[in-house]
Amino acid sequence: MLTTENRQKPHDLLAAYLSKDMDAVNALIRTRMASEHAPRIPEVTAHLVEAGGKRLRPMLTLAAAHLCGYEGQHHINLAATVEFIHTATLLHDDVVDESGQRRGRPTANLLWDNKSSVLVGDYLFSRSFQLMVETGSLQVLDILSNASATIAEGEVLQLTASQNLATDEAIYLKVVRGKTAALFSAATKVGGVIAGAPEHHVVALNDYGDALGMAFQIVDDLLDFQGDTASTGKNIGDDFRERKLTLPLIKAVAKADDDERAFWVRTIEKGRQELGDLQTVLGLLEKHGALVDTATDARNWAARAKAALDPLPRHEIKDMLTSLADYVVERIS
Amino acid sequence: MLTTENRQKPHDLLAAYLSKDMDAVNALIRTRMASEHAPRIPEVTAHLVEAGGKRLRPMLTLAAAHLCGYEGQHHINLAATVEFIHTATLLHDDVVDESGQRRGRPTANLLWDNKSSVLVGDYLFSRSFQLMVETGSLQVLDILSNASATIAEGEVLQLTASQNLATDEAIYLKVVRGKTAALFSAATKVGGVIAGAPEHHVVALNDYGDALGMAFQIVDDLLDFQGDTASTGKNIGDDFRERKLTLPLIKAVAKADDDERAFWVRTIEKGRQELGDLQTVLGLLEKHGALVDTATDARNWAARAKAALDPLPRHEIKDMLTSLADYVVERIS
Repeated sequence: MLTTENRQKPHDLLAAYLSKDMDAVNALIRTRMASEHAPRIPEVTAHLVEAGGKRLRPMLTLAAAHLCGYEGQHHINLAATVEFIHTATLLHDDVVDESGQRRGRPTANLLWDNKSSVLVGDYLFSRSFQLMVETGSLQVLDILSNASATIAEGEVLQLTASQNLATDEAIYLKVVRGKTAALFSAATKVGGVIAGAPEHHVVALNDYGDALGMAFQIVDDLLDFQGDTASTGKNIGDDFRERKLTLPLIKAVAKADDDERAFWVRTIEKGRQELGDLQTVLGLLEKHGALVDTATDARNWAARAKAALDPLPRHEIKDMLTSLADYVVERIS
Repeated sequence: MLTTENRQKPHDLLAAYLSKDMDAVNALIRTRMASEHAPRIPEVTAHLVEAGGKRLRPMLTLAAAHLCGYEGQHHINLAATVEFIHTATLLHDDVVDESGQRRGRPTANLLWDNKSSVLVGDYLFSRSFQLMVETGSLQVLDILSNASATIAEGEVLQLTASQNLATDEAIYLKVVRGKTAALFSAATKVGGVIAGAPEHHVVALNDYGDALGMAFQIVDDLLDFQGDTASTGKNIGDDFRERKLTLPLIKAVAKADDDERAFWVRTIEKGRQELGDLQTVLGLLEKHGALVDTATDARNWAARAKAALDPLPRHEIKDMLTSLADYVVERIS
């Protein structure tokens, strides 16, 4: 078997396979994010859309449509829709998180202001809505409107769950489904639906997207404690500083003794963090095996993603989607 | 002719005529703003949705559907859709305006935080989207997705237009169409479309809603300089303090001599406002007839709204819509 170092990343293989479609998606994104009346809009969106995101979500839509033998053009609209929803969510997230950096670059709310981030996010969301209406598929509209509601609900749940030590793994999984997996599963599912795939193939694509999204977000939350800033564009311990109860912290809190519990109450609930606290956190994560257990959970989701693909026919893209699920958890050091 | 004092307000007549439908709309709103997972959502929305807004927009949808002889149930969904879009916009507006009061009550961003306002607004927007998908009408989805984009674009345009003395009446009208008239016209138009009304009736309803919305917003901007806090729930001069170039100010700036121009540059562009500036503003508005001219513009839009109704058949509701257009400008003192 090839190792990570000497083979192409599955993401790049997919990008190469789908390059003609992705060019069309990128052209559509550029056209639709323009605004005749409000020049601030393309300024903000260009900053974000051109910022070198991997376009993973739109690729999933294109991949699913190809895998199901689609020969029309609506998958281009749907891929752009999915990227617009994602971008709108990022803009609003940065306001909510009061973040200053994303993918190693200053965020829009820092370069312009929170107002622009809120309103341009709304603009992109309504543009995404126009794009999907153009496909004329009520089934697709149903899937994407439900996904939008799940995303928003997950974001609100995250807001009330952070700083609250009662947040358990069940709540965490709901949050992750909302903030990440709902759009992944909608992205793959609409690709199958637009291709007119049989119901059990659509279900398989939905389940793949869901499990891949869960694995992806859990790895992201794990890397917050063990990644390096250069490759993730994030600082180690950001989630702890923002008092976000992600899976590693939830696992450590669940095993805390009385002294440790007092530490979590002070740092997470009361937010009175001091120099050296992050070192203590890393020690507690190690002590309770929280990072190892989180990695195991992520690998289980990746395995579930691969298994979900079983009912789908043999296809080059199916192999790439399998490799992609492996790759997501290979990011774990 | 009856005077304002001794007859029922047209809004109340409409409300009485549509009361059974409005009960259904209110019940649907309560059901759909609930969230199983995130209790913060109903807290925030209840505060806003129960705050005694006039439900003018959903009533316009119901009225248009009845006027066109609709006998189905989709107008209930559409009326709730329109109110959700409106409520979502208010939540985001309050974040953008950093407001502390709406309709005489503290705003959600003050009672909870900006984060909740942004995310719960997103939630309501996606819920509105689900509600309209349920009607199964692609034409309705097209109208409402276009309206959403126009609203968001108008909001961003307003952001860049405020504090900028180059903002002229043409830009102002675009902003007003976005922030107010686009949802009014979509509200009336979808009522006709869902009823299967002929194209020239749908156009009439659209134009009525558009002109009514323009009149409504211009009167609102006028009352900011001559209303009283008790009836408007706003303080006199809020727009000036927020450096928003509304129509009265635009008219006064256009006629400014050099000294006045310096005053506008200091107070609007540079934002260095001093005690007594609002008195100076009120004097300049009077000197240049800006309030009188703004009132004339509002009356012209109201007249245009009434004229737009001409092609529609005789109907009690048609008379109420005519009175409503009159009433909107009767609010001018």
